[in-house]
Amino acid sequence: MVSTFRDESEFVRWLQRLTPTRTRSLRLGIGDDAALVRVPPSRELILTTDLSIEGVHFTRSIHSPRSVGHRALARSLSDVAAMGGVPRYALISLALSRTASPNWVEGLYRGIRDLARRFRVVVIGGDTARVAGATLVDVIAIGEVRRGQALRRDGARPGDQLWVSGRLGLAAWGLELLKSGKPWRSGDARAALQAHLYPEPQCALGRFLSERRLASAVIDISDGLSSDLTRLCAASSVGALVWAQRLPLPATGNPGQALALALRGGEDYQLLFAVPARVASRLPSWFRGLPLQQIGEIRKGHGLALVTSDGKKQPLKPTGWDYFRK
Amino acid sequence: MVSTFRDESEFVRWLQRLTPTRTRSLRLGIGDDAALVRVPPSRELILTTDLSIEGVHFTRSIHSPRSVGHRALARSLSDVAAMGGVPRYALISLALSRTASPNWVEGLYRGIRDLARRFRVVVIGGDTARVAGATLVDVIAIGEVRRGQALRRDGARPGDQLWVSGRLGLAAWGLELLKSGKPWRSGDARAALQAHLYPEPQCALGRFLSERRLASAVIDISDGLSSDLTRLCAASSVGALVWAQRLPLPATGNPGQALALALRGGEDYQLLFAVPARVASRLPSWFRGLPLQQIGEIRKGHGLALVTSDGKKQPLKPTGWDYFRK
Repeated sequence: MVSTFRDESEFVRWLQRLTPTRTRSLRLGIGDDAALVRVPPSRELILTTDLSIEGVHFTRSIHSPRSVGHRALARSLSDVAAMGGVPRYALISLALSRTASPNWVEGLYRGIRDLARRFRVVVIGGDTARVAGATLVDVIAIGEVRRGQALRRDGARPGDQLWVSGRLGLAAWGLELLKSGKPWRSGDARAALQAHLYPEPQCALGRFLSERRLASAVIDISDGLSSDLTRLCAASSVGALVWAQRLPLPATGNPGQALALALRGGEDYQLLFAVPARVASRLPSWFRGLPLQQIGEIRKGHGLALVTSDGKKQPLKPTGWDYFRK
Repeated sequence: MVSTFRDESEFVRWLQRLTPTRTRSLRLGIGDDAALVRVPPSRELILTTDLSIEGVHFTRSIHSPRSVGHRALARSLSDVAAMGGVPRYALISLALSRTASPNWVEGLYRGIRDLARRFRVVVIGGDTARVAGATLVDVIAIGEVRRGQALRRDGARPGDQLWVSGRLGLAAWGLELLKSGKPWRSGDARAALQAHLYPEPQCALGRFLSERRLASAVIDISDGLSSDLTRLCAASSVGALVWAQRLPLPATGNPGQALALALRGGEDYQLLFAVPARVASRLPSWFRGLPLQQIGEIRKGHGLALVTSDGKKQPLKPTGWDYFRK
């Protein structure tokens, strides 16, 4: 596809057919020097960007181009979810390896487009180039949130309950299954593959927590519970206790493996949030088919501890993904 | 620097010291899941992103890290200029080659920061990762423009005058000088080096054209006059005549080389704009030290032609940078 275009203008026309170029608030989409949008005066704008790199975040042997596109956009939409916002637009910067085929690029954009459509996100621009090395996608997501209602990391207070959505470590288990190459039959295993290949940004939950003012702090779990909880607690200047017994683990059949996956497995894109005790009774156990679970509590100080099934406390260190520690 | 950080949070704190994290309209800068900004109701938002890739847009033998950072941000600010906007924020995605040293990364960020400060642009977020291949910087710029006053590519009409700012081909000449490795002494040559290594986004001119409603169409010259004029004409469904005698060429001492540089040399980041004849008398010859020059006129149809010094017309084809034609 890309290589079959005569020039940039043909490529831009192809992109324009994939995505609307004008809505009520979108004044100008793909095709000019920049995109142009209007923001309602009652809203603040959420801006975030996430890199997806071949050999780091995906490999061609495991991830189809549709999955690569889906996951690249999902990463950014999940950041908008963690702010309690509604995603509206995306810009896609694509540095293409010389070995990426036209079909691969088309699959990538279809993966982006299909997820974008479901969330009514419009692709409004981007940049494209060839690179000698690995393929890289940078997805910028732009969302909106009502003024003053954005969810942040730094509002957790001692005594708040600590909650998560969905299952933890499911996407990491899915990746292990995909790498093992073994056949998988159980529904749990299939759910793990789906969680890894086509993760779901929890935008509706983020918006619900924001509008009902149910959360004092929120972060999305992109790098594993232990790492993202460490970040939330550092931003809020608090500590936390996590009850191992309450963690919604993947049904791997091996409790030790399941716990490790939940603590350090990233890319679940579930929300981790602190709930002030006075509003906790208003939080449902299920939100649109998604289980919500209290897994611990916010404490004074700076320590993070895991309470194991025998009641013992052990320090909880960030063992999830951190580029600087790799 | 990067490799000396223990974890991501240390790196984020270093970035936060480089750039303010809160202004009146910036609600939340670097450090949360996403940034949060307010947009005045009278304004529309301009969004653009540009890749800068080692081996494509820069090489370490020619470009210092400060120059790489400056040029990466300038590319995006120039898009905001071409829309008639005021740049406000930037997000920086950085995929770092394993061979990029801590000093190199620090230099890159200082190049970004110095240009950002001059334009009062605040870096509000981004992403960072290591790559096996070449270093890549993706700069997202966010600007503001008064509602309905954005300058677009598609408004040029037959009879409009065609103007450019500054010199054309100067940055491309600078690159040739740098590659040649020869000593250069003339002021013109030094201006060419400066134009290549530290190009100036023409934001004040873009804003002036927008506020005074002097331009029917604008594009920034990032890929060479012939290519960017082709884009402006295609978007406006018009043709154009360019008078070779009027082109503001670099003083290379070789007229043929100078003309070729002006037509296909990119990265000048000057503005190319169409001016309706009825307002042309209100356009000054100089704008804040920057020469403005009529170089031709917009015509009916779709053809682009160059009128040479002997009065002959020859077709003007896009010969500048186009990733798809490379």
